Parts: sequence; C-alpha cells; structure tokens
Amino acid sequence: MSDASFFSDLLTSIAERGRRLLGPAQKAPPARGGVKAACEALLEGRGEASRVALASQIVQTWLVSDEPGRAAFFDMMLKEFGPDEARLENAIAAWRAEPSQEAAQAVNEASEPRRQELIRRLALAPEGVAALVKMRETLLGLLADHKSLKVVDDDFSHLFSSWFNRGFLVLRPIDWGAPANVLEKIIRYEAVHEIHDWDELRRRVEPDDRRCFAFFHPRLVDEPLIFVEVALTKSMPATVAEVLDPGRAPIAAKEAGAAVFYSISNCQEGLRGVSFGNFLIKQVVEDLRHDLPEIATFVTLSPVPGFAAWLAREIEKEDTEALPPEDRVALADLDDRAWMDDPEKVERLRPILTRACAWYLVHARNSRDAPVDPVARFHLGNGARLERVNYLADRSPRAVRQAHGMMVNYLYDLGEIEANHEAFFGRGQVAASASVKRLARRSKTTGEAKTGEAELAK
Amino acid sequence: MSDASFFSDLLTSIAERGRRLLGPAQKAPPARGGVKAACEALLEGRGEASRVALASQIVQTWLVSDEPGRAAFFDMMLKEFGPDEARLENAIAAWRAEPSQEAAQAVNEASEPRRQELIRRLALAPEGVAALVKMRETLLGLLADHKSLKVVDDDFSHLFSSWFNRGFLVLRPIDWGAPANVLEKIIRYEAVHEIHDWDELRRRVEPDDRRCFAFFHPRLVDEPLIFVEVALTKSMPATVAEVLDPGRAPIAAKEAGAAVFYSISNCQEGLRGVSFGNFLIKQVVEDLRHDLPEIATFVTLSPVPGFAAWLAREIEKEDTEALPPEDRVALADLDDRAWMDDPEKVERLRPILTRACAWYLVHARNSRDAPVDPVARFHLGNGARLERVNYLADRSPRAVRQAHGMMVNYLYDLGEIEANHEAFFGRGQVAASASVKRLARRSKTTGEAKTGEAELAK
Amino acid sequence: MSDASFFSDLLTSIAERGRRLLGPAQKAPPARGGVKAACEALLEGRGEASRVALASQIVQTWLVSDEPGRAAFFDMMLKEFGPDEARLENAIAAWRAEPSQEAAQAVNEASEPRRQELIRRLALAPEGVAALVKMRETLLGLLADHKSLKVVDDDFSHLFSSWFNRGFLVLRPIDWGAPANVLEKIIRYEAVHEIHDWDELRRRVEPDDRRCFAFFHPRLVDEPLIFVEVALTKSMPATVAEVLDPGRAPIAAKEAGAAVFYSISNCQEGLRGVSFGNFLIKQVVEDLRHDLPEIATFVTLSPVPGFAAWLAREIEKEDTEALPPEDRVALADLDDRAWMDDPEKVERLRPILTRACAWYLVHARNSRDAPVDPVARFHLGNGARLERVNYLADRSPRAVRQAHGMMVNYLYDLGEIEANHEAFFGRGQVAASASVKRLARRSKTTGEAKTGEAELAK
Amino acid sequence: MSDASFFSDLLTSIAERGRRLLGPAQKAPPARGGVKAACEALLEGRGEASRVALASQIVQTWLVSDEPGRAAFFDMMLKEFGPDEARLENAIAAWRAEPSQEAAQAVNEASEPRRQELIRRLALAPEGVAALVKMRETLLGLLADHKSLKVVDDDFSHLFSSWFNRGFLVLRPIDWGAPANVLEKIIRYEAVHEIHDWDELRRRVEPDDRRCFAFFHPRLVDEPLIFVEVALTKSMPATVAEVLDPGRAPIAAKEAGAAVFYSISNCQEGLRGVSFGNFLIKQVVEDLRHDLPEIATFVTLSPVPGFAAWLAREIEKEDTEALPPEDRVALADLDDRAWMDDPEKVERLRPILTRACAWYLVHARNSRDAPVDPVARFHLGNGARLERVNYLADRSPRAVRQAHGMMVNYLYDLGEIEANHEAFFGRGQVAASASVKRLARRSKTTGEAKTGEAELAK
Repeated sequence: MSDASFFSDLLTSIAERGRRLLGPAQKAPPARGGVKAACEALLEGRGEASRVALASQIVQTWLVSDEPGRAAFFDMMLKEFGPDEARLENAIAAWRAEPSQEAAQAVNEASEPRRQELIRRLALAPEGVAALVKMRETLLGLLADHKSLKVVDDDFSHLFSSWFNRGFLVLRPIDWGAPANVLEKIIRYEAVHEIHDWDELRRRVEPDDRRCFAFFHPRLVDEPLIFVEVALTKSMPATVAEVLDPGRAPIAAKEAGAAVFYSISNCQEGLRGVSFGNFLIKQVVEDLRHDLPEIATFVTLSPVPGFAAWLAREIEKEDTEALPPEDRVALADLDDRAWMDDPEKVERLRPILTRACAWYLVHARNSRDAPVDPVARFHLGNGARLERVNYLADRSPRAVRQAHGMMVNYLYDLGEIEANHEAFFGRGQVAASASVKRLARRSKTTGEAKTGEAELAK
Repeated sequence: MSDASFFSDLLTSIAERGRRLLGPAQKAPPARGGVKAACEALLEGRGEASRVALASQIVQTWLVSDEPGRAAFFDMMLKEFGPDEARLENAIAAWRAEPSQEAAQAVNEASEPRRQELIRRLALAPEGVAALVKMRETLLGLLADHKSLKVVDDDFSHLFSSWFNRGFLVLRPIDWGAPANVLEKIIRYEAVHEIHDWDELRRRVEPDDRRCFAFFHPRLVDEPLIFVEVALTKSMPATVAEVLDPGRAPIAAKEAGAAVFYSISNCQEGLRGVSFGNFLIKQVVEDLRHDLPEIATFVTLSPVPGFAAWLAREIEKEDTEALPPEDRVALADLDDRAWMDDPEKVERLRPILTRACAWYLVHARNSRDAPVDPVARFHLGNGARLERVNYLADRSPRAVRQAHGMMVNYLYDLGEIEANHEAFFGRGQVAASASVKRLARRSKTTGEAKTGEAELAK
Repeated sequence: MSDASFFSDLLTSIAERGRRLLGPAQKAPPARGGVKAACEALLEGRGEASRVALASQIVQTWLVSDEPGRAAFFDMMLKEFGPDEARLENAIAAWRAEPSQEAAQAVNEASEPRRQELIRRLALAPEGVAALVKMRETLLGLLADHKSLKVVDDDFSHLFSSWFNRGFLVLRPIDWGAPANVLEKIIRYEAVHEIHDWDELRRRVEPDDRRCFAFFHPRLVDEPLIFVEVALTKSMPATVAEVLDPGRAPIAAKEAGAAVFYSISNCQEGLRGVSFGNFLIKQVVEDLRHDLPEIATFVTLSPVPGFAAWLAREIEKEDTEALPPEDRVALADLDDRAWMDDPEKVERLRPILTRACAWYLVHARNSRDAPVDPVARFHLGNGARLERVNYLADRSPRAVRQAHGMMVNYLYDLGEIEANHEAFFGRGQVAASASVKRLARRSKTTGEAKTGEAELAK
Repeated sequence: MSDASFFSDLLTSIAERGRRLLGPAQKAPPARGGVKAACEALLEGRGEASRVALASQIVQTWLVSDEPGRAAFFDMMLKEFGPDEARLENAIAAWRAEPSQEAAQAVNEASEPRRQELIRRLALAPEGVAALVKMRETLLGLLADHKSLKVVDDDFSHLFSSWFNRGFLVLRPIDWGAPANVLEKIIRYEAVHEIHDWDELRRRVEPDDRRCFAFFHPRLVDEPLIFVEVALTKSMPATVAEVLDPGRAPIAAKEAGAAVFYSISNCQEGLRGVSFGNFLIKQVVEDLRHDLPEIATFVTLSPVPGFAAWLAREIEKEDTEALPPEDRVALADLDDRAWMDDPEKVERLRPILTRACAWYLVHARNSRDAPVDPVARFHLGNGARLERVNYLADRSPRAVRQAHGMMVNYLYDLGEIEANHEAFFGRGQVAASASVKRLARRSKTTGEAKTGEAELAK
C-alpha cells in the first residue's frame, strides 16, 4: 500500500532530534535554580509549550553530570518526589468513609509518587526517552548498594512497560546494507557468539543464507532493543561449527529447508525486565515463512547454561532419579578437563551426557516448578518443543564450562505453539519430541534408557 | 543525515498492520468464552506472545459490536475491572501500620483499577491504539447519561496523556502531494473555515503561498491529530477575505513577509483533553523560519468567539468600565441585523466595536481570572501578543453571530514568547501591542479613548 | 533488504528540483543573446558546470513562450542545428576511399544532426527531461502542418527510446494513499472508462478488490507514464457492469480467483511511440501472483474497437468467408439503433454477433498480415490468449458504436505466454481458447457453426 | 514537500532487481543457441516483453564468463555488430543524389554500428546498466593490446554520456549512518588520502566537522560514482595534518568558518571520461551554504601532482623565466632526500619552492596552452581561484615525490566562479589571489620576487 511511504518519513524528525544529544556530550545550560527547582517547575507546568525546554535542560544536566551527581539525582527523586502523604491520608480517609471507585481513584492518584509524572514529563524532551533508558541503566547499577532506590526503579519500570509495549515496536531486518551506526551495535551487543570485527559481522549478515532481525522503538533511534541472528540451512544443525564455520560454503536462501535461530541478544540494559524476545521470534518466523515459503523447519540452536551446575549437584546426591548409578560413576571422566581430546572418553560420555541433559531439560524444576534451565523456560514458555539434544555441539570454553558442550534445538512449529504454550503454563507440561522423551525416560536402570541410544545425535 | 532513511521505514509495518482492521468491518472470530473471559485471560497473561492475539480478538469484537454492545463493554470495564478492594484494604492497613514509600507503592498498585492494565494490554493489538481512541470517542458520548463511567474515562485519559505526549508526535507538512487518505481528513476535520470539496482543498494546500502542517502519532496512521493552515502574505492581514478569496493572485513564498495561522483544528474527538496545539504552533514557527528566513511576522487571524455574548451582557449592565455610556447607546445599531449593509452604521460602529473588542480581550476575565475568550486564553497562554483588533474582518454568519465580524491577530514573536508566557501565568498579564493597549485603556469617557482611533484598522 | 531505504531517498532531490518549474510559469531571465546563441553556447560548452544553468535558461524560455515562439524554436532546431554538411562530405569521402569501422563511425558522427546533442544537453536542466517531453508533445501537434519537422521529431524519439527504456521505469501501486497530485492524473488520463470525480476515483483504487499500477520514471515526477486498473473478482467477468457497478459488494482480495485488467491508459502524449504496455502487464501479473498466490486467472476485459467498422465492410461484400449469407441478412437488425431494447432482436443477434466477432479477432488481417483489431494485436503480441467473446458486455455509446457492445477476455497464462508470443510473431498464429476457435471456424454455412452455440457467453 | 516520499520509494525495486546478480555469481542458463544468436534475437526483438529476459541472459552469460570469454564477446561486438555496409552505401548514394536532412538521417542510421542498439537493449536487463559499466571496465583494460576495439569503446562511451548525464545523478551525504555496503566502497575507492580501516573511515564521516558527499545513479545501486570528503574548519588550512590528524579536537559544525574539500575520488573505472567532478563541487558548495550559512570560505586543500617533474625540467634548462639563477642553485638542496629534517634547508627552500610553485601553477602550460598541472586545470576550469600555495603541507612520500610537499588551496567563491570560468576558457586567464600573483611575478631577478615573501604561508 503506497501511503506507507508518507508515514515512513514520520520518524525522521524524531531520529534527528534524538541523535544530537546522546552523541558527544554538549555543554548544556545548567537548569536554572538547580535541578530540583527545574523538576518542580516541570511538574507545575503552567504552560505546556515551555515544558519541552525544561525537560530538555534537566535531561541534559543529568547526562553531563559525573557519577555522584547522577546518583544524587536519584536520591532527590526518592526523597523529594515521593507521594504526597497528607493528600494520601485524606484520600484514604475518604475511601474508608465511603468506598467507591471514585474514592479508590483518589487514593490511587494520591499514592502515586510525584516522580512518575516527573518521568513522564522528562520524556517530552527531544532526547527524553533515550536519556531515561540511560538513567535507568545507571540506576540499576546503584540498586545493590542503595536498596531504597528500588521504589524509584519500579516507577521507571512501570512506565517503560507502557511505552515499550509490543505495539510500539518495529521489526527490521538487518543486513550489510543497514546503517553502520546500527551494525556497530550488533557487534557490541552480541552476547552469545562474539563478533570480533567488521569482517566477521559481514559474514553474519551479508550472505544469502544469513539473516538478522531486530526490534526498534520509534524513540530510541539507532538503537536495536533486541536482535536475533538466523542461519538458513539445509537441515537442523547439531553443532555451532556447522553454523559459524568461516569456511562454510553459503547456500542460496531458496535451497534452505531450515531457519536456525542461533543467537538472541538483548541490547538495552536500561530496559531490563521489559521482555521482547517472545514477540521477536514469533514475528521473525512469520516473516520468514512469507518470504521463503519453502522453509519447513524453524528451530533454535541454543545453549544449556544451567546443565553443568545442575549435573554437579545431582552427582553429589546420594540418590537421584536423574542419574542411574553407573552413569554417576562414568561421569567421573568429566574431571579430566581434556576429556574432549580423548576419543574413548568422548564415546563413553556420549550416551550418558545426552540422557542426563534430556532429563535435565524435561524434568529438572526450580522452586516455582518451572524448568531450571532459563533458556528452556524461555523457549518452552513461547510454545516451542524440545526437539533434539546435541552432544559436543559447542566446544567454546563457556559452553564447556556451563554445559559440557551440549546444545539443544528448540523447534517452533506454528501449528502447535499455542497448544504447547497452554500445556506448559496450564499443566507445567514440557513439549518434547519422541526421541527426547525416550532419552529423558524416568528410570534408574540403564537398561531401559538404552533403547534411546539410537536417538543419539552424532 | 542519511540514516534517517533507515528509520524512516520503521513505521511502515505499523502502518500496514493498523490500517487493515479499521477499514471495512471484518468478521472477527468472537472472543472465546465471551469478552469478559477474554479480558480476564488477557490480564492473567501467562505467556506474553499470546497476548497480541487475545487483545486483537477483544478489540475486534468491540469494533463490530452494535451500540448497546459497545456500551455494555464499558459497563463491564466499570463493574468487573475496578480496583481489587480487599487488596486495597490490606495495603492501606500496611501503610497505616508503617508508612513508607514501599507501602505507598503497594497502596498505589492496589488502588489502580484493573482496567488500566487491561487498556495497556489492549494496546498490544496491531490496531490497538487506534481502536482505543475510537473507544474513548464512544465513551465520551455516553458520559452525559452515564456519569459513573467517568472513572473509566479517567483511565483512558490517563494513559493517552502518557502515550500521546509531545515526544511521540511528529510534525508533517501536508501539501497537494500528501496521500489522498490524509487529505480527505483535512476536508473532514476543518472546523474553522469549512472546505467544501477537493478543489477548495487544493487551493488551501497547493499554492506556493499556502502551507498546512499536522501532528501525527506513529500508532494512528493516516490520522492527523491536529493541523494548522497557514497563509504566506506580504503583510499581516486584517480580514479573512484577504486570505481565502478564491480569486486572489498567489504570491511566491519567497516574497512573503508574514505567515498567517488562520485555522487550527483538532481531529480526534477520542483524544479530547490531550492538548497538542501549543506545541504545534511553536514547531511550525520554527520550521517556517528555517525554510523561509525572510518571513519576519508570525501571526494568527483568529476568531473572537465570546465577544458578542460578553458585549450583550455588558450592554445590559447598569454600569460597566467596559463601555462608555454613549457607546452603549450607539451599540443599539447592532439590533439592525442588516447594519453591515448600511455604510453610515458601519462607520459609526467602527470605533465603538473596535474599542469594546480590545477591552474585552485585555480586561474581561472569567471566574478563574483568565481571559473570558477561549481563543485568547490559548494564544496568550502560548506566549503570543494581542497585536491588532480587526473590524469587519469576517462576514460569515458564524463570525457575525459570535463576534459582530471582529477578528484578532495574535503575534508570535519568538524573542518574547517566553516572557509573555511567564507574565501571563505568573501575573495574569496580557501581552498586547501599544495600539491595542491604547484602545483598551480603562476609561468611561470617550475623550481619552479617541486618541486610540488612529490605531483602528481599516 | 534494508539498504533499499538509503537509495529510496535518492529521487527526492530530483523530484524537488523538477517540480518547481513545471508548476505555475515563472519569469525566467531570457537566455542572453537570444535562444539561438544560448543553444550554440550550450553545444560549445567549454565548462561543463555552466551547462546546467544554460540548459535551464533555454528550457525556461521555451516554456514561457507563446505558440508561435514555441514553433519558431523547432524551426530553429530544424534549420540551424542539422548535420554539418561539409564535415559529412569529408567523412563520406574518407569512407569511400577506405571503408572501415572507424570511417563509418566518422560518417555516423558527422551525419548526426547537431540538435541531438542539443537535446541531450537540454536534459541537464533540473527540469530538462520533463520539459523535453512537453516539447515533443507540442512538436507532434505541429507535424501535420509542418512535415519537414519530422526529422526533428525523430531525434526526440530516438533519445526518448534510450532514456525511457524499461530498465529505468519503476512500477508503483496506486491506491487511495497515493499522493493527490498523482491521483488527479489518473482521473485526467483514464482513457477507457472515464472517471468523473474523486469519489469515483476512490471506488477504483481504494476497495480491497481494486488495484491500480503505474510505471514512473525517475525524471518525470508526479507523472505516471502508463497505468492499468485491475479488478479482483471471483471469476472471469463477461460484462463491464460486473466490474464497474458502483453498487457491487466488494470482496476480500483473498477470496479473488481472477485479476481482471479492465483499463490501460497511456499518459504522456510526448512519449508517443515509446511503448510500455507489454512490460506493464507482465510485471503486474508477476507482482499480483506474489502477493495473492490464490489468484489463478489473469485476464483482461477489453474493447474490440475495430469490430463494427470491419463488420460493416463485410456486410457490404458480395461474398465473404466471415459471414454466412443468412447472418448477413439477420444483421440488418443492427440498423435499428434501439435493438438492444428489443429482447427478441437481442436473442436473435446473440449467436450471430458472437460468431462474427470471434471470426474477426481470429482471422481478420490488415495489410501487414497482423490482426485488424489494435487491442487484439497488443494482447496477442504480448503472448495472451483470446479466451472468450462477450456479447452485450458494454452498453456505453462508444462501445456500441465501435463494437456493437462486444468485449473480449484475453488470458495471460504465464506458462504459455512465451510460446504464444513466438507463434504469433513467427507464424502469425492467434492463440485462442477451444471455444473461441469453434466459434471462429471458417464456414459459410450456419450448420457447423451452430455447434459453437453452447459456448456463447450469456 | 511531502510527496517526495512517494517517489522516494521508486528506486527500491530497481535497487532490489539490480543487486542480486552482481553479488555472488549465479549459474545463469546459458543463452540459447549461443551468445551471438541471443544478441541477434535481441536486436530483432519482435516482442518487446521478451527482450528483458533475453538481455538478462546475455548479461548473465558475460558475467560468468572467464577472461577469454569476455574478450571474445567484445570481438564479436566489433566484427558482427558493426554498421550494415550495404545499407550505408545505399544511404550515401541517396544523400549524394539529393542531399537533405532526411537523407542525412538515413546515412546516420545506416552508419550507426548495430552494437549501439545492442548495448541499449542490454540495458533492459534488470542489472543491465551495472553490467554494462563492468563490461566497459574490462574493455578499457583490453584496449592497449586491441586497438581495434576502440570503436566499440566509443559506442559504450557515447551511450554512457547520455545515461549518466548530470540530470540523472543524485547527490547524497554519506555519514556514519550510511549503509555499510556503501561505506565499504568509500574505503575502497578513496584515492587521495588512503583509509585503512573502519575506525579511520568513521573519523572521516562521523564527527560533526566532517562531511562526505557522493553522486549516485538510479541504476547503479550501492555504487557511488564519485565522492568528495569535506572538513569543516575555523579557517583555511595550510597542511594536511591540520585536517587529518587523528588527535585533533573536532569542532561543532556551527563554529566552522571554512569548508575544505580535501579529497575527491572517482569510483567507477567503467565510467572513465564521463565527468562528474565539476558538478559535484558546485552542488556541495550550494548544499553546505544552505545548511551552514555561517560558512564563508569554500576551499580545497589540493595536491600539485605535476610540480616536482616540471621543476626538474626547469632546473635542467639553460635559461628559464620560471627560476632566477640563484634559485636554481639553491634548489640543489632538494638532492638531499632528508632535507625536510634539516631546519636550515627547510627555511632556505621555503621562499624558493613557494615562488616556483606559484609560477608553475600560474604560468606553466601544456601543448594545448592549458595549465600543466591536472588538478589546477580541473579547479581553475571550474571557476575556482588559486588562493594560496602551502609549503611543507603534506609530508607523505607521494606528496614529497610529486610536489616536494607543496599543496594548494583553490577557493570557490560563488560570486566569481562564472567570471573566472569564462576568463579561463575564453582568454586562458588563471584566477589567482593577489598574494599568489605577486609570488608568481615573471622575473629573473630575486629582487622583485622578494617583495612576495611576506605572503609566504608558514
């Protein structure tokens, strides 16, 4: 529809306005009468048109402040811009005298800390929202030592959830034709499989069998919120090397049978707790299905970050359903840090680690009765299915340390996502392929589990 | 800066998503288990990814409902999604036991009606925000007969203020190359000087000496929020005919000495109370100054909607500062509805109406000690200056009825806007040109005022 | 791919530059020393940078000239900027002395009229190409009375073929969100089924089952070159009323089984002879197939402009293969101008006109052994198949006058386009459906043809 | 003007179409019947719609050919697609019998080699123009050894001049937000001051006091044709170090008084001889003036590539106006390759080299009576003024070798460009500042020239 192009220019001015400040620090005129006075004036706000300038001054002042100055700002927000207690008492009294929705509303308004409206009005500044996200990033760093600031953080968090709701997010493909100032952020924020330089970046986004998608927000220009890297492959890969080998021969996108989500990274520490990932994957699956209808398999190649720690705990236990006794013994091979270089040990550990990992993913629960593994919680909660457990799939130090090199494929099958999702949240049921189920069969004897061996991925 | 174009595409998908629904009604699958169950499920929301679908279903259901169905929805919002009273009582008890910001926060959360979060989550639907604006439009229409819905409206209003804050708005010029589906809304929403057809519209936006600017919001596609029409003229105009005469000879923009804001119209009834106008004029002044640096005068040609009613009241009064006795007598000419066709009366009334109008604008106050005239309140509050009072400036029936044909020029002088604004809100002081001040001199004798006659605009 | 957006801005500046001049006439400074001197200076062109200004002056001067002035310009082009005869004689002498490609090249250069380079350099002006297209439009109008200008027109035509080659054209969908200044040209240029006003235009481009596509050229901004209107229907329509009835109920695009090209219009008289239509239909078929894969049938609903004239000639003939004697007699019914209102005559003529029309389209040839009907030549040359002949398909005065109300469906079947195209140009073979072939069977007796009656479209 | 955005999308599809092929080589179906048959079929071209496919096949075939295959293609163009000799003879005979413009036109058409139309039709392919530019790049490489191909190259050159005329070019700023695939070409093509990596590139395009502009063509996507790098400085710089020092402190663009063009690079070898540079600088000056009206000085910092060679020749001469005898003696210091490290020599050579360089630029002429120095020819021909000669301005090996470290500022003063340009081409007059003129005063005695010393740049 052609009028999209009319609206496609809408963001230009926002982008322009926002970019200036957050680059090299500029000497902002300090807020007149001090920051507190400026904040009070902003809240008072007799004329709306002057609010923009006021908000901009405050934001500028904060941005050019040093660390103590920034911390002092939050302290001021805490102490000077809390709720109006007298007003709150009155509202409560009225509510108690005669409860009604109107009275509850008065209580609600009176109990809202004044800093919430302050934050809302700071967003008026051209660069306001971006600066507020930076503010919260700083604030999060202070929380450990300043627990009382938690209520301030809650106010940021509350507003961010509203502003960054999925309806405001825009999915954009990122390729080698993307702006350099966006691409450099992909380098910087990649959290799963590090990107070392521009050449490596190019290998991640330029070939026809590589895709990258990010969510953006109209008011955070040049700043991806979260991104996912996708490899188009002939079939579901079992190791990270298959995907990231610099020497691999790219295939044509049209020949791909599978789309592999091999890396998802959040970019904005200041938006911690505002979740985008589940929306992202669903949207990318839909977009790829439209562009490349031949792709039948949408699958991740995911780390298992909690596996090694869990396994260590299980090995310590006297008695555990998770491990047959003989497996516990055999796992002593792991004490040899070089076991991966010993073909014999590698073959001996293959069935044992694979079964243990399947058991871990299917059965191990945390205190809230959810899967222990955070990556599993994420994908299973999204409605994905545990499709395959891959042995020696990632030999990087981190993967070895966290998961003895194991990786997992979670499968996104649009036809069953909804049902999996319901079953997971309603009945705590983990969707898994038949082969993973067999591997994870509850059993203390190896005998039964052995039937699963044919399923082991090489 | 060239990466603006990357971001300029961000909105396309939003635009696409949003447009579909709000066109011709589609048969949405009714929300499973009824709307209330769907709303509860949306609030419960175990998995975020499924919320989009759920929100979309609810919104669709509402949109295809008939009037009673729509009203019932608001009734449900009122009765079923108010605050959780038990939780509120507990939070209040805790606060009373030990007041703290944390306790106040708990009260705040407990007193928030559940429908606020419901509204936030409905915004997740692709077409959510647009539909919510439509919802509130309907709701506003119900308020007169259903006063209890006021608290529901407050919740909409609260969230809209946050989402439609100026930081999210984008100013766009509207010309003859704008999309037809935007232009048709300019025709529809023009509230000051009606546009009858596409030819008249073209005369408003195509000539080099005509401009139009509107605010848009990323999530309300094809929908201007507010727009202003501007005429570029050689000098400050005194009558609407100078500006809108279809036979006038357009001038080149470069030859213009003045930019005249002759019409400002709000477009979205559902956003009533969320004000944009003051931001709009300031921004347009800045944009025009950049594009056409030769323009020295930024001025309105504004109606005086409250003048005739006020004058009628003054005439009735025994004694009033506003009118010298002989003027009150002379104003009897107004009883002749055809006075404008009588040259003698026209000349007789000229000084009297002009002085009275100046007095009205400068001195007449409402109960909150603000100017009686709403248009004056708007522009003076923005920091504009009352520049000139124009006699027989608009002969349209409405202008004659409301203001005996008077119009006013308010001048936006960027150098003094801030000071005017401060003086207006701080000391209730009305900024006015020397000539208007002379005309408005408080006096019961004509003698003094006569000195002002030289100032009368012809 | 996201860098498209970077390039998508490329045209903005061209658009801007070009638009200014062609609007209201501006007082251009007359070319110094007269137009001829300016043209000579432009050709001499020692410094390239000054050519733009010079070209612009000449173009401006022409645009603000009156009719005789414009004609005089072409006369000057003819007489003053022809080939350099002396140089040509020399080059010919050299070629005769020793033929070689170099010598032929010298002849080629010497024989090129100087105005060709002049036209190329006029294109340097910001508004150059658009102005040159206008020039040729004027020139074409002069040709009838000034045959010697034909060689000048040939030079324009030669360069336009190069500049407007299909590689430079861009296909754009036109919908209700297209710019008003483009849409007004759709109203103006629609040549097949007139569009009376903006409401009718909206009915052509806004509903979900209506599409419009146009070719644009980077240097002719706001100016479609050619456009096609498409109706999405459940099945192949037999009458224009089915398609254009204002009261019809639109269907969802997804429910459509057929895409009907019911109107193709050229827009630029100045580009006469530069053909775009064949590229346009092929491209639109491909785009629609991608967007709406459910559509199986791509078909036109076309006029038969030469049928009535041809039929009149056949009726006059003593003996013709085209018409059995009894049909010729029956066709006397056509003499009654109101025959369409007489149900009996309507039924009597149905088989006769349908057969005659099929015969006409399949067998009637012009002097170059191509189909007599120009619309048939166009679509058959494109590789389409004559699918169905429709009786009483268009009751508009023009259609009745030109074709006794007959219309035709030409079918674009991507699988056989290439073969049809080859057969048409190679062996003069007309692709037709079995039913049309049966109707068009060569025969002087009605007996045989009668078997075709079952095929008649109601 | 808002409809620019409608047109801004026009190029997207071109960009898309063109990009695919020129990336990794694809296995194109070889042209049926061999390339020659395909070329003949393309020229024959009975149906236009099939030409696109045919052109695409030929272009694809060429692109995937090896070197001999590519050369063979040009050989075929030379031998098989020259002019039609018989037709040419006939046309010549007709012209001789009765000369007329029509007859000359027939000669022109007959003498045009058939490959010209072939090239035009190859441009129909989606990737046609880009491939043709690559073709010519290859062809240029073959010319030295295959002089007969010159006529083929002339045909390419002729058509490129028409297609790449300035009216089709688009100027685009290039900054850190430009697409990576464009930026990498800036790295690759920078010919004056090499860019070593992405960090250095960023320093050239990201800071507020750095600008880069390039010309693009709608059909050569992702491919700048020529670009210029600009430094915004407080005043006219005398050395390259001032401009490119990585440690310099960037200034705000608003504080800049001068815009310095310190590097201009052509990108497309295949477009050799099609000149863009003069248009580029003029356009950039105009754009910068609009954006940064405070900038008063537009100036280059240019190499003097022919100075050292010329000076060596002058030193050899017995008698020369260019050098006073004592200067010739003193120049022996240059024989010491380390003279720049000897402060005494540096000071001794300062006046001598400066005067000699000024003399060289103002007076030294080549056989066509134009300045010997190619950079001087370029800027003086554009209407710039020789503003200042800078001693020890560039200590890079190349600058030392070519110009003993000298550089020049050429000043672009919009007010006098036209006059300078005219004087240069009309009277061979070199525009120079008073101080350069004094330095270049024709004289064999040092006495007079000494008065110029005060002018020497430090």
